[in-house]
Amino acid sequence: MVEFSDLGAFRIALSSMSDVDVEALDGAAARNAQLTKPPGALGRLEDIAQWYAGWRGNPQPKVTSPQIIVFAGNHGVAAQGVSAFPPEVTEQMVLNFQHGGAAINQLARVAGAQLDVHALELDRPTNDFTKGPAMSERDVVSALNTGWNAVRTDVDLLVVGEMGIGNTTPAAALAAALLEGDAATWTGRGTGVDDAGLANKIRVVAEGLALHAGQGDGVETLRRLGGRELAAMAGAIARARKLRIPVILDGFICTAAAMCLEHTCKGALDHCVAGHLSSEGAHDQLLKALNKEPILSLGLRLGEASGGALAIQIVKAALECHSGMATFAEAGVSGG
Amino acid sequence: MVEFSDLGAFRIALSSMSDVDVEALDGAAARNAQLTKPPGALGRLEDIAQWYAGWRGNPQPKVTSPQIIVFAGNHGVAAQGVSAFPPEVTEQMVLNFQHGGAAINQLARVAGAQLDVHALELDRPTNDFTKGPAMSERDVVSALNTGWNAVRTDVDLLVVGEMGIGNTTPAAALAAALLEGDAATWTGRGTGVDDAGLANKIRVVAEGLALHAGQGDGVETLRRLGGRELAAMAGAIARARKLRIPVILDGFICTAAAMCLEHTCKGALDHCVAGHLSSEGAHDQLLKALNKEPILSLGLRLGEASGGALAIQIVKAALECHSGMATFAEAGVSGG
Repeated sequence: MVEFSDLGAFRIALSSMSDVDVEALDGAAARNAQLTKPPGALGRLEDIAQWYAGWRGNPQPKVTSPQIIVFAGNHGVAAQGVSAFPPEVTEQMVLNFQHGGAAINQLARVAGAQLDVHALELDRPTNDFTKGPAMSERDVVSALNTGWNAVRTDVDLLVVGEMGIGNTTPAAALAAALLEGDAATWTGRGTGVDDAGLANKIRVVAEGLALHAGQGDGVETLRRLGGRELAAMAGAIARARKLRIPVILDGFICTAAAMCLEHTCKGALDHCVAGHLSSEGAHDQLLKALNKEPILSLGLRLGEASGGALAIQIVKAALECHSGMATFAEAGVSGG
Repeated sequence: MVEFSDLGAFRIALSSMSDVDVEALDGAAARNAQLTKPPGALGRLEDIAQWYAGWRGNPQPKVTSPQIIVFAGNHGVAAQGVSAFPPEVTEQMVLNFQHGGAAINQLARVAGAQLDVHALELDRPTNDFTKGPAMSERDVVSALNTGWNAVRTDVDLLVVGEMGIGNTTPAAALAAALLEGDAATWTGRGTGVDDAGLANKIRVVAEGLALHAGQGDGVETLRRLGGRELAAMAGAIARARKLRIPVILDGFICTAAAMCLEHTCKGALDHCVAGHLSSEGAHDQLLKALNKEPILSLGLRLGEASGGALAIQIVKAALECHSGMATFAEAGVSGG
């Protein structure tokens, strides 16, 4: 078990990450050009297959062992009424995950993925970020370590997601602190607050920004405005990079957490694709800022890794085509 | 085996089709409202699940036995150089399907679907529609019968697709004949013709329109401008309606064939969803004309039922969530 002792150690790990295997990438491109289909006719599937092959260091790989991790955390700002649901729902939903009753349980089963759930000190919400940093350095490093160690070393595709009543508020605050735009730009309705609830969320985010924006890099901002499950997602994404495990990002909150890595170290998300476009407020702008095109766009806004889990099946299908199809020569098909 | 003796008999069958089960639809909507998620948070998945439940007549169904059928045909207009590939590729690709080397073989496996391939008289291409009707009434009825009888009665989801060198040309001609817009509006690059090839295709479609547009309803236009694999897809879609088997439409050619049914009998495609948005020319306009929103948009333009096959996994996932999730009461989760 790696244990980062402080944020500095995590930053060093992030800056010395493995890069894509160019030889495998070239090999995959050469294979793609010979498959029995018109050039480019599988569209995005062709790009996904080659991206995956490059990160796996294998020009003809398949996806056989995906892992989905859901991290859960509670938030001090929830006390300010930023969610349509009460804070105890975080723990209730963790129990629902453990009993197999949530959407992600069904989606993990369909995708053939291992599902792991990590609840992070639910009885100890983060601090209200309008009053001080959400987490101490010790707290954020602990959450990063939990995420880092949650990744199984023998998996070949990772999806990370979250559960945490109130957590679209820290996600919006992170985006507003690290990207262009103000609190109103980045704040959405989450699980479904009304107009008054939305105005309240915007006020809370704006107060957090006034206190913490411009106070440090991505991981420092994650400490000040984020939450335990967001930090754990960031830790898991970093670990996957080290292990050359491609990652599918889930929705707005997951993407906001991931963005803290990219902001700390440019290129830190090159091993990630965006699984879907959520209907939560500003997810589209967040993906544009990261230059990630979502694989799916189905109007989901659930979290729980649900959109990422759905996208596993598309990534798997892309690799089945890439690695399983016959070439023109093998099939005796005349080229165009 | 049902055998339609003429187009009139097929029209009568089409006009007396089964309708959605309103009780099952209402039951599914009631169940959806109780599942452990914020209202609407599963977006499009919720709509798909309820649509499927309505057609299956069961408020809590799952998808367990999908079928994919690929129909192959050859086209007289191929002799006019409308494709980037030579006509013998149709038969070569049918062999590739039979040997498991094509994209659809991989996609069917991932989707857990039965794949059936029906080659329709490949040694007898349709007539060149710039010179006369593509098919005699006997020919088109034979193809409709092939499609009708190709649907397995014990399946619970159907995808139909096609292979036929040159067949984006009849598909464009059908759209231009039955919808707004001229030959240039509906004609695209298919497997990848260049600018001169595209101009030639537009000329061929325009000549077909001059000879056949306005000469009859959807199925008569299908006879005059379509092809055997297009008619077979239409026959299979009609049979699925009779059997209450929901259908996922594939790309441009499949949708054009389906549109002939809708044009013959309004509502004939209510049991169908659009699996994906193809990058072939005017597929987006065709879907808009049918008021169908595609589930996926991945830039595919392969045919072979490939986009529809990918969408099986989304439909399956939607039903796993709908029918497998716990309700708020079952899970002891506080509502919003």
